[in-house]
Amino acid sequence: MRQAYVHRLSAAAPDDVTALIEAIERGAITAAGIRAILGKTEGNGCVNDFTRGFAAQSLRLALARASGDPAVAERICMVMSGGTEGALAPHWLVLEARPAAEDSVPDPGGALAIGVARTPELPPEAIGRRAQALAVADAVRAAIAEAAITAPAAVHYVQVKCPLLTAGRVEAAAARGASVATTDTLKSMALSRGASALGVALALGEIPKEQVSDAAIGARLDLFSGCASCSAGVELMYNEVMALGTSQEWTGPLRIDHAVMADPIDVAPVRELLTRLGVREPGAAQRLQIRALLAKVEAPHSGRIRGFRHTMLDDSDISATRHARAAVGGALASVVGHGEIFVSGGAEHQGADGGGPVAVIVDAA
Amino acid sequence: MRQAYVHRLSAAAPDDVTALIEAIERGAITAAGIRAILGKTEGNGCVNDFTRGFAAQSLRLALARASGDPAVAERICMVMSGGTEGALAPHWLVLEARPAAEDSVPDPGGALAIGVARTPELPPEAIGRRAQALAVADAVRAAIAEAAITAPAAVHYVQVKCPLLTAGRVEAAAARGASVATTDTLKSMALSRGASALGVALALGEIPKEQVSDAAIGARLDLFSGCASCSAGVELMYNEVMALGTSQEWTGPLRIDHAVMADPIDVAPVRELLTRLGVREPGAAQRLQIRALLAKVEAPHSGRIRGFRHTMLDDSDISATRHARAAVGGALASVVGHGEIFVSGGAEHQGADGGGPVAVIVDAA
Amino acid sequence: MRQAYVHRLSAAAPDDVTALIEAIERGAITAAGIRAILGKTEGNGCVNDFTRGFAAQSLRLALARASGDPAVAERICMVMSGGTEGALAPHWLVLEARPAAEDSVPDPGGALAIGVARTPELPPEAIGRRAQALAVADAVRAAIAEAAITAPAAVHYVQVKCPLLTAGRVEAAAARGASVATTDTLKSMALSRGASALGVALALGEIPKEQVSDAAIGARLDLFSGCASCSAGVELMYNEVMALGTSQEWTGPLRIDHAVMADPIDVAPVRELLTRLGVREPGAAQRLQIRALLAKVEAPHSGRIRGFRHTMLDDSDISATRHARAAVGGALASVVGHGEIFVSGGAEHQGADGGGPVAVIVDAA
Amino acid sequence: MRQAYVHRLSAAAPDDVTALIEAIERGAITAAGIRAILGKTEGNGCVNDFTRGFAAQSLRLALARASGDPAVAERICMVMSGGTEGALAPHWLVLEARPAAEDSVPDPGGALAIGVARTPELPPEAIGRRAQALAVADAVRAAIAEAAITAPAAVHYVQVKCPLLTAGRVEAAAARGASVATTDTLKSMALSRGASALGVALALGEIPKEQVSDAAIGARLDLFSGCASCSAGVELMYNEVMALGTSQEWTGPLRIDHAVMADPIDVAPVRELLTRLGVREPGAAQRLQIRALLAKVEAPHSGRIRGFRHTMLDDSDISATRHARAAVGGALASVVGHGEIFVSGGAEHQGADGGGPVAVIVDAA
Repeated sequence: MRQAYVHRLSAAAPDDVTALIEAIERGAITAAGIRAILGKTEGNGCVNDFTRGFAAQSLRLALARASGDPAVAERICMVMSGGTEGALAPHWLVLEARPAAEDSVPDPGGALAIGVARTPELPPEAIGRRAQALAVADAVRAAIAEAAITAPAAVHYVQVKCPLLTAGRVEAAAARGASVATTDTLKSMALSRGASALGVALALGEIPKEQVSDAAIGARLDLFSGCASCSAGVELMYNEVMALGTSQEWTGPLRIDHAVMADPIDVAPVRELLTRLGVREPGAAQRLQIRALLAKVEAPHSGRIRGFRHTMLDDSDISATRHARAAVGGALASVVGHGEIFVSGGAEHQGADGGGPVAVIVDAA
Repeated sequence: MRQAYVHRLSAAAPDDVTALIEAIERGAITAAGIRAILGKTEGNGCVNDFTRGFAAQSLRLALARASGDPAVAERICMVMSGGTEGALAPHWLVLEARPAAEDSVPDPGGALAIGVARTPELPPEAIGRRAQALAVADAVRAAIAEAAITAPAAVHYVQVKCPLLTAGRVEAAAARGASVATTDTLKSMALSRGASALGVALALGEIPKEQVSDAAIGARLDLFSGCASCSAGVELMYNEVMALGTSQEWTGPLRIDHAVMADPIDVAPVRELLTRLGVREPGAAQRLQIRALLAKVEAPHSGRIRGFRHTMLDDSDISATRHARAAVGGALASVVGHGEIFVSGGAEHQGADGGGPVAVIVDAA
Repeated sequence: MRQAYVHRLSAAAPDDVTALIEAIERGAITAAGIRAILGKTEGNGCVNDFTRGFAAQSLRLALARASGDPAVAERICMVMSGGTEGALAPHWLVLEARPAAEDSVPDPGGALAIGVARTPELPPEAIGRRAQALAVADAVRAAIAEAAITAPAAVHYVQVKCPLLTAGRVEAAAARGASVATTDTLKSMALSRGASALGVALALGEIPKEQVSDAAIGARLDLFSGCASCSAGVELMYNEVMALGTSQEWTGPLRIDHAVMADPIDVAPVRELLTRLGVREPGAAQRLQIRALLAKVEAPHSGRIRGFRHTMLDDSDISATRHARAAVGGALASVVGHGEIFVSGGAEHQGADGGGPVAVIVDAA
Repeated sequence: MRQAYVHRLSAAAPDDVTALIEAIERGAITAAGIRAILGKTEGNGCVNDFTRGFAAQSLRLALARASGDPAVAERICMVMSGGTEGALAPHWLVLEARPAAEDSVPDPGGALAIGVARTPELPPEAIGRRAQALAVADAVRAAIAEAAITAPAAVHYVQVKCPLLTAGRVEAAAARGASVATTDTLKSMALSRGASALGVALALGEIPKEQVSDAAIGARLDLFSGCASCSAGVELMYNEVMALGTSQEWTGPLRIDHAVMADPIDVAPVRELLTRLGVREPGAAQRLQIRALLAKVEAPHSGRIRGFRHTMLDDSDISATRHARAAVGGALASVVGHGEIFVSGGAEHQGADGGGPVAVIVDAA
């Protein structure tokens, strides 16, 4: 038996790792048990957002210092998501797995389970294409198995960190006579996220394999996963996958479930999700009970929300992802009662166009 | 007996006045009956937001063309508020008053009432000071009287359009030996809004007269009105006031009430307000029933929302008012089910710091 | 014989037309003689820049009022270019043509000549394609003829106002079974400007006709005109062309010449251009002598300027066109000694990648 | 005898320290000799610019790794300036001092000299006030002495890194019954820079001591230093000073001189400065000869440049410092022929309002 822990730590800046160091030093967090750190940092979440790299560098330094083991950070899946617009608050989510206490009693309904896996390194020409989706699907299955989750329906959140194309990688492919999905490096981020999300959908049986073609990626917005959250980073050429779900092989008080918003103001499914998880109309006690909310958001490409025009896609001063995070972040913060929620932008094939998946982890104790 | 009408018209651009022209031409709106037009336009809502002026110019042209009367626009209180961040949708709110039908039966609970008044022209040295607050208080009382609203508690929304200082006005005062509240023209907008809001609070008995001093304006954030919505404009040197409330001298199906949000994610009072007004959990029919939502929003100066840090005041790329409109707009749109709501930024003395007043008009028929 | 006049008028706001009205009223400008008004307005110059529309509406109102002729504006080519970043100053350039005085003596070197023409309305499927380039080339030839300019080498500046695709236009083409160059409306602006610039290059013999293919537009950055300045607008489906050059059929003290900058800091050709035009190191008198500077600018797509990395294309907070206007505007203002220069962004096929054409009009008297 | 070295290294990102590590490893730079590192990083240069902290942390890691001495970074004056708008290129300037070769022949005209000093820690109530200016003046004199510069006229650039107020520091002062210059932490940065610049002006004899009062700081824009460049940072409570000038106690080919721009487009003094330093009209060879250009820039508070309106101060989408760096950076890059120049914003009392000091270091060999 294993037990999962979710620690939510406030951050006063992208390099504020004092809470993490303090928690490790007093034994509240075991550095060796950390499987993943998700961070919301206060950059723009777009191309020139260096708060993500600054945060990751600071976390690696802190983990080495607090644990005395310089290699501990290498084993941790780090996902830094820029953008704390509006009511959103910068914070870290530290996900830890420990062996359960010997006298743990399994709950027949299961508890929060964490599994991690990765694909082999991919050649540049696979990025943003069917080959990447198939590789991610295999890694998702491996992460689910590692988490001892026995059914796709028990998976509620799959985080994928995926590679992107750079000028150098495009050239390397061309030198071998291979062509890439796009030579636009910014667009390669969207295609890589999209292919990864379709890989999640494949592994969870949300879409049939034959619908995942090169042409569908980035184009067939009707194909999506209700559990995927994907982000692209320049530092890796493989895909790193973390699956969260429910397993009877895990114990402890944490429970997870998910919902899918149909558009940026569609909070009714999230209210119902909280009810399913036993959270009543949130007050102070209920806010403590909610350990994490993880959401993917996006401005609807139709230019409309329930028939009314939005201006997010036409604003040349503020990028649409910043608008979307601010609006959905405000709506979701008003539901859970605070802004330390992981609202991330860029939701290609992650929920329907303009909507997105929302997972919630609560402490049922 | 009079009857108030509220027409909400979508705008495809700041100069899209087609819906207004069409409504006047088919008789749905009587140009001579229009008391006020409130517009949400898609600029940044800050200093260099020219969508407000463009909208006002376009509305004046449209009113002259559709009504055949070039002077009709002069009698209308026009309040253009820039900024449709996130889920917010550009639109016009046309408030009209007509003589009631001869056979109208008064509702003992009263109906939506509209009253308009203005102060005399103020000298530059009065702007942002106690003198302005006292003048606005008189105008608010006049507008309430004109609306035949008999008790301060029956007032639910007071819109004030107020003057600001320009370099020329500062010089004119100096030439007479008079000093102004500030020589910073941007800051004069905040002080003028603040003095106006305290004037509303005075007229409604929300604060005692002796607390309104020059020093309190812009500083004593604990003094505020729960009904005031103020915006500064360069085109006038007087204050224009529109009061909305409930009066038994008015008839028809429209009802108004208000609530005060304590912070940007405090939607519970708005949900209760909708319940008081007879709106159940909003579906399509309920969305039609809600004719207008009018809110003032602001980023909390404490830098925190319910103890968690927000980054709105530290973002040098996006002004805090844009953040606040996006976040609160998302939260309120998720409550009423659409984005055609009048969410306006810059809430000095308009609700508590970080919170703000919210008025709702529904069709009770 | 005709005589050209160039009036440069400062603007205090996008709707500040007082200088134009005043100049018409005191006879300094003859409304009926105005051929074109070029305006630099203080918006962002991108998709949601409404200062351009506000300026155009204000100019039309002013022309009708000052001239008493509501139709006068219809005959004038209006080009509003948004973006006065850095040292740039908002202003209007009014280009006027009048019959020369009876006793005018022609200068053997010729004088500034203005010619205007337009293409027929184009179907949506022609926009951004070779068909548009060919149509524009015909219109450029017509404008040159109208200006009585006898050689392509005597043309120094060609302004093209061109159409763009909208969702409605794309649908209209699809309904007829026609496909368009792109369904991305923002991209259609770039393709339309690019096709127009290649049309100018064709008419001036800068490139051979066979090189202008659908595939070359927006892709073959080595093909360009050194005289073209193109801007796309939603309000027309034809292309409007204004050619400026030198003709012996025109008289008066105004002279024009042009240069091509190779990159954003390449001011040496502009210094040489000023020398050719007889302007010494600019002082106050010389600044008066320079009537207009018209430039097209762009961030180099290589990501480098003379080998050094620039960050304009990676900045998700400020669009690259704003960066480019600010930088090149600063460099050119430092050459001519003031900021009332017409620096416009988006230079597809208008000068080499990252560089751009610069035309200067001086008063040689 | 000592010899100064200036190494200019391109940076591909705020954490790109590869060129520094490589230069130390191959012996081109001696880590122990580094006196200062000035960095231009690609953030917004305003409150939430974390590229500065990211760069400093990355440099400290790199210096420790490459030198094997974790403490080496502590002895180095690090000044990170955010903002590479327009043509500006991210880069590092590494200033090194070594003992001169035994057979060095002194140049009677002297060579580039570097001196560093610091003030004692200041209490919060001294920041932005006369006390800070006096302390900085002492430190400037110490740095000049350390550099063996014998006359104020031989000083050409003084970099000051100065403290700022935080909420905690304000509270600490209040707890002792002391009041601070401002409780607005952003404004404290400007006041601290201003007091520091006046300290430089005092030490160099540019202004008399009696003119430096608390009230003059931030207000008397006519008082300024033509050599000061000041930046505020949260990490220190003392002032760190680096003086660059000419001394006969130093040898080698590097020479320094400075000029003062009167406004953002006033490049004539910089052209004359280059001529004085022996640089002809810049070509590729001349660009290599120019080792560093260091400038302070600002938008004129008058709202005008040579009588023409600028819009930098009214743009609520882009901060005025970004506009000013882009414009002046473009103008100066067009003079020196490339964008690796240290153009920094926020020039309170550093040059006249809207203008700023410019220092140039050339290799005279």
